[in-house]
Amino acid sequence: MTRIAIDAMGGDNAPQEVVAGAVWAASDYGVAIELVGKPDKIEYELDRINAEGIVSTAGGFKPQRIKIDTSKLDIKITQANEVIEMGEAPGQAIRRKKKSSIVLAVDAVATGSSQAVVAAGSTGAAMASSLFGLGRLPGIERPAIAVTLPTIKKPVVIIDAGANTNCSPEMLYQFAVMGTTFSKNVLGVEEPKVGVLNIGEEAGKGNELALSTYKLLEANQDSLNFMGNVEGREIFSGNCNVIVCDGFVGNVALKVTEGASSMLFKMLKKEFKADPLAKIAGLIAKPFMKRIYKRINYEEFGGALLLGVKGITVISHGRSTAYAIRNAVKVAKDAVETGVNKKIADFLENNSINPVSNE
Amino acid sequence: MTRIAIDAMGGDNAPQEVVAGAVWAASDYGVAIELVGKPDKIEYELDRINAEGIVSTAGGFKPQRIKIDTSKLDIKITQANEVIEMGEAPGQAIRRKKKSSIVLAVDAVATGSSQAVVAAGSTGAAMASSLFGLGRLPGIERPAIAVTLPTIKKPVVIIDAGANTNCSPEMLYQFAVMGTTFSKNVLGVEEPKVGVLNIGEEAGKGNELALSTYKLLEANQDSLNFMGNVEGREIFSGNCNVIVCDGFVGNVALKVTEGASSMLFKMLKKEFKADPLAKIAGLIAKPFMKRIYKRINYEEFGGALLLGVKGITVISHGRSTAYAIRNAVKVAKDAVETGVNKKIADFLENNSINPVSNE
Repeated sequence: MTRIAIDAMGGDNAPQEVVAGAVWAASDYGVAIELVGKPDKIEYELDRINAEGIVSTAGGFKPQRIKIDTSKLDIKITQANEVIEMGEAPGQAIRRKKKSSIVLAVDAVATGSSQAVVAAGSTGAAMASSLFGLGRLPGIERPAIAVTLPTIKKPVVIIDAGANTNCSPEMLYQFAVMGTTFSKNVLGVEEPKVGVLNIGEEAGKGNELALSTYKLLEANQDSLNFMGNVEGREIFSGNCNVIVCDGFVGNVALKVTEGASSMLFKMLKKEFKADPLAKIAGLIAKPFMKRIYKRINYEEFGGALLLGVKGITVISHGRSTAYAIRNAVKVAKDAVETGVNKKIADFLENNSINPVSNE
Repeated sequence: MTRIAIDAMGGDNAPQEVVAGAVWAASDYGVAIELVGKPDKIEYELDRINAEGIVSTAGGFKPQRIKIDTSKLDIKITQANEVIEMGEAPGQAIRRKKKSSIVLAVDAVATGSSQAVVAAGSTGAAMASSLFGLGRLPGIERPAIAVTLPTIKKPVVIIDAGANTNCSPEMLYQFAVMGTTFSKNVLGVEEPKVGVLNIGEEAGKGNELALSTYKLLEANQDSLNFMGNVEGREIFSGNCNVIVCDGFVGNVALKVTEGASSMLFKMLKKEFKADPLAKIAGLIAKPFMKRIYKRINYEEFGGALLLGVKGITVISHGRSTAYAIRNAVKVAKDAVETGVNKKIADFLENNSINPVSNE
């Protein structure tokens, strides 16, 4: 059985929501879990779950209570007495706090006790401890965060969504390889199309990085299904399956999506309460509003994969609810079982990168 | 009476929608207009408007016909036989096509025949001809595009939304000055708060540009109301009134907003058609869906100001409808009448920039 390590102390709602989400995933997806953190706090949460069940807030609508018997699940607790806080400098923190929950959760993967790790705490600390604890895949300069976003067709992968603020075209080529492998194997997209996030469709558009990346991906069309530049507006058309960019731009794109959707939902909810007639419409619209909200909400995808390290690290939103953690564990399980990392390494071993021709 | 020059040949829907929008603005806002382009085509559109009226598609819902008598309006036609197409390299195009509609429309402002120009064609050509034809304001290195976006509170200004892909911290300081002046004088925000678009709130976050800009704006807090970093998700909270970034990131943020909103509306419209009950809800929801759509649609703000040139240039969306052009002319009129440019120049003359302290 696949075992997933979870940093039980990481995130705004830890340990309560994190432990609940992990247990929920164990129950729903048949995975074993390894909860890393302060044992007394974890035990307290497990007892609470046995007594009260898990409160699901899926979709952001009315909470529902789910009964789970933890004694039927494969749950391991690993002690970690330290916690890395959100404000700490990641590099220093992982060296100073060797017994922190995130460092030991990654360690569980490095030693083979678990096959993947889910972390909702400091993204920087999760990245640093993964890089340090697991090492890079051969052929990968820097790991990158792959985020899955909904579109009106199939989901799209944005890579890098925040790991690297300074990137080279070669790094974006590697992101394209990792994103393609992820899209194909985990999301089930047959021939993922790769695009460069840019401010115009024409080849001559954009900043230095976008211009050079365009040329490099064009030179490697034999191995990657490169379709050209993609504008911010086109992300959601679903015509492109993997969009590469540096982590600064990717992170802005991701959070703008979140902010714009959330604003729209707030505006709609307010209108649905404005008068009795609107309330009736709101009542009718509720189920599908919920469905749409679920489709676009980050909770649904649960977490972003840190690709490029020798192991599977899923980075969850700092504000993750139990539902988001449950889905993040599912992402981790799928990544393990489809062997994404081996496929990335194989690709890079079998396809040497073509340089940009100087004609 | 303020006169606005309009590149009648620019944009995907030119000249039909552009001429209609200009005439509509003249009728609604009491401005004089100067239509620059091929006279026969412009006359044809004016005749059509007199015969059939203008078709308003405001809000993207059912079209409405508006009757307008152009003989009562102050409309001037200026001949321009060339048109710069979307794909052309802007710098070369404006030198080669000196009689193009965009070059002559900017010229109309340079010579004082009009007080502002509205352009829906190639953004690059509008920028290049404005920079070349009007010159820069004293103290401004590079003009920038200021886009107004809705939030749940007051609108926010994103600057730069696409003019400059490579920026220095000093340029972003100037963008902050221009954005503040615009927000205060045209949007009526009393003490506009300025933020740096970044991937985290902490001062130590982001790429080189964001880090250095943070320090520079912090050192100039006496003259600018600097509030720190703003994440993509926070743009729509309305807590920050002016957000500075380089034109690559700004353009992505803007287009992602457009794409995400449009996807959500498509999903909602589809659900409102799914069954008879949903259709009833859709009927009730229609007026406020329309209201929300209007609030978030780019058509409503009509156009983005190119700030930093000695004159007012409003850059409209390439896909502008008559309604968008009408609103763009209103933006141009407001910018002229509130004297934004003089206020920017005054600010830069009276406030010398504090360097970052090296303690």
